[in-house]
Amino acid sequence: MGVERTVDIAVIGGGLAGLTAARQLRRDGFDALVVEARDRVGGRTLNHPIGSGKIVEVGGQWVGPGQDRVLALIDELGLETFPTYTTGRHLFEYRGKLRRYRGRIPLIASAALLDAYIGLQRLDRMSRLVPADAPWSAARARQWDAETVESWMRRNLHSEIARRAITMVCKAVWAADPADVSLLHLLAYLNAGGGVDSMIETDGGAQQTRIVGGSQRISIALAERLGEHVLLNTPVRKIEQTQGSVVVHGDDTRILARRVIVAMSPALAGRLVYSPALPADRDQLTQRMPNGSVIKTMAVYDTPFWRADGLSGQVTAATGPVKVTFDNSPPDGNPGVLLAFLEGGDARRLGRYPVEERRDIVISSLTRFFGSAAATPIDYIEKDWSADEWTRGCYGAFMPPNTWTEYGPALRAPIGRIHWAGAETATVWMGYMDGAIRSGERAAAEIAALVAGDRKPTAVI
Amino acid sequence: MGVERTVDIAVIGGGLAGLTAARQLRRDGFDALVVEARDRVGGRTLNHPIGSGKIVEVGGQWVGPGQDRVLALIDELGLETFPTYTTGRHLFEYRGKLRRYRGRIPLIASAALLDAYIGLQRLDRMSRLVPADAPWSAARARQWDAETVESWMRRNLHSEIARRAITMVCKAVWAADPADVSLLHLLAYLNAGGGVDSMIETDGGAQQTRIVGGSQRISIALAERLGEHVLLNTPVRKIEQTQGSVVVHGDDTRILARRVIVAMSPALAGRLVYSPALPADRDQLTQRMPNGSVIKTMAVYDTPFWRADGLSGQVTAATGPVKVTFDNSPPDGNPGVLLAFLEGGDARRLGRYPVEERRDIVISSLTRFFGSAAATPIDYIEKDWSADEWTRGCYGAFMPPNTWTEYGPALRAPIGRIHWAGAETATVWMGYMDGAIRSGERAAAEIAALVAGDRKPTAVI
Repeated sequence: MGVERTVDIAVIGGGLAGLTAARQLRRDGFDALVVEARDRVGGRTLNHPIGSGKIVEVGGQWVGPGQDRVLALIDELGLETFPTYTTGRHLFEYRGKLRRYRGRIPLIASAALLDAYIGLQRLDRMSRLVPADAPWSAARARQWDAETVESWMRRNLHSEIARRAITMVCKAVWAADPADVSLLHLLAYLNAGGGVDSMIETDGGAQQTRIVGGSQRISIALAERLGEHVLLNTPVRKIEQTQGSVVVHGDDTRILARRVIVAMSPALAGRLVYSPALPADRDQLTQRMPNGSVIKTMAVYDTPFWRADGLSGQVTAATGPVKVTFDNSPPDGNPGVLLAFLEGGDARRLGRYPVEERRDIVISSLTRFFGSAAATPIDYIEKDWSADEWTRGCYGAFMPPNTWTEYGPALRAPIGRIHWAGAETATVWMGYMDGAIRSGERAAAEIAALVAGDRKPTAVI
Repeated sequence: MGVERTVDIAVIGGGLAGLTAARQLRRDGFDALVVEARDRVGGRTLNHPIGSGKIVEVGGQWVGPGQDRVLALIDELGLETFPTYTTGRHLFEYRGKLRRYRGRIPLIASAALLDAYIGLQRLDRMSRLVPADAPWSAARARQWDAETVESWMRRNLHSEIARRAITMVCKAVWAADPADVSLLHLLAYLNAGGGVDSMIETDGGAQQTRIVGGSQRISIALAERLGEHVLLNTPVRKIEQTQGSVVVHGDDTRILARRVIVAMSPALAGRLVYSPALPADRDQLTQRMPNGSVIKTMAVYDTPFWRADGLSGQVTAATGPVKVTFDNSPPDGNPGVLLAFLEGGDARRLGRYPVEERRDIVISSLTRFFGSAAATPIDYIEKDWSADEWTRGCYGAFMPPNTWTEYGPALRAPIGRIHWAGAETATVWMGYMDGAIRSGERAAAEIAALVAGDRKPTAVI
């Protein structure tokens, strides 16, 4: 047996949810320990060095207005932010034609897109009827949870371009195809994130702001403050509840705790061994919350040459595997970095190719958008989150049909001494870094509430 | 370390698929070992004693015409069969009214059911266009995989009774709601099972025949013949592929093998630890094949009193949690046993109740169908397969939308030295005992094919 520890609270998962929970618990007087499988913290946020002390983020990276918890944490940790580069014209590709435009993504740029605009507005209105903390309680929950976004689109959107536009939104937000996702899930998620515009916009939306030094710095800074209370390289295999305590088992680690917070995506949480076995509801929920599919790719250039052409680096494309790009250069614009997402079915198909072929496909898309200067990057970086053993898909988990209505309450309900955190359990900005932080704080509060003012928390929890 | 063994092939899972695979491999000259988590074989088949040496089956139990592999195995093992009791009139409940009828389930019993009949015929016709061994290759695969059975019904069935009828079929076949299941999955499964009538009928269909002594006897007889080559009480936790071999790790067991067959449902197979980690496609598939939800309940009476009333014991009910019942008495009709299924959402909701309340609800349904004599059973037996740690849902796994088309080929494709078996991987009678047997034989054949006539199999596999 390598490590034996006794703590008040074991927190499994060193992403934003777990680290935030541990921080809050320690502030509340609990001895909390984060247990992380990887040799790093940050979960689905990850900085990738590109030389000269600079980085790009191959995981979650943006924050925006309304994401108050992550913004407050950034501030508290003394980190700095900078605006996503949006100067110049964006590109929109449809039927092989590239158009330049300014401002909002061109869903309202032409009469042909009116149908898409009306469809998105309708989804926004419907989303206000779906409480994000209890989507199953919506009056039409059963109806909306019985179909996919795709089948809804087919019935309700008349033009192909409108369906393609909403497909792009679906891929960009969930890294899933409209055929993957329950309509009710889309609505709950929109509600939690403040609506379509709030979620898909850069200026004024969830992609507005970046973090100097990379989003993973939030987790790194939290872990630095937690110090020895973060245990890396320790995959948890089993959670054993006994009378009055919990034993967390790793390969050669044993942690005795009063309670445990599992801050992992539901699918991965479902892969741990539980003793006693979990109730049917919770177990079957974890069989029904798959993670999305995304490969985040970046091409690095000596300079952000597109800026000189008056382009922002942002593309929205209705065809081809790369449907969304951004200028992802460091704050000083040196080097130039183009970020290209492969999402949903595009990620799955291209994930089967050797990296060289995938790189060629991505670079060829970028060349189509930005011209021949895009053909010769000095570096190509990619991260397939579905292939990552400790994540198994990003951006996060989504609900297929009939999951919210049949299993929703099992998402957050503690099981004995086991509490659940993670971005998927958030009711505000569900699935985002902000949601992850909120979920960690909520799980910590669940435990603190059990103490009810006692000075010696370990005596009563 | 408790057990250390070296074999040619380790087969994980002692259900019909695993036992059949091991039997075939041993016949082909391989040293095959079955490793089973439970203290018994049989997987989703399970005999439950009811006294006087008699049993009822709380898991899969029926066989029928066209299920040639299971019928051949029953014969070879010297087991006997007897017909499911169908004498007398069946009951059909709709809007609180009980009707008696003879023959086929009353989908064609009245003009009001014509819509349902036409709908089922249409599904049958569509299913012939979906090859069960490659549903993704159907011309309209994308379209049919983009929606649930529920959204298809809403568009294509005009009457409520038709939707209820197909809902009953969906629950009876998959233990899932129409909102759970991809339309393409329904079609592929119908194709694999010979069509709607073949799957839902008793006389002439998949519920025609029972096995004397219970279906688990097939597995028990196979295990007896395998003798010491079945290792019980050994949950596998990890499969480690190294150069030229595989190590199967249990809690205190280590089995070194040339190859391994994983004969578990995909969701449970996905919960093992793999080293190296599985490719993205296979891993994400296991996040997307949830098991159905069923509680099989039986009420035991001194005599099968309904027979004297001219009733077969078979009910099809459009309302209430019990939608299907059967006479499940032993061959001599003593005692009388009524089998009542709780399926899909009904199983999930009633699964949350204490057993006493659930029992009362079931018995009250039986009393509604069969009169006051049903109110006082001498025994009540139930099995919630979703709560069973080593199964986690029956009848089997199903595909939600966008799974067959995005991940289908990953269902059977070996990963290095790991092969996949289990009823879900069958292309004929997918999901049935017959399919499980076929899948075990297919996986064994995959391995045998690698040997290509060599006399010393262990030298080359």
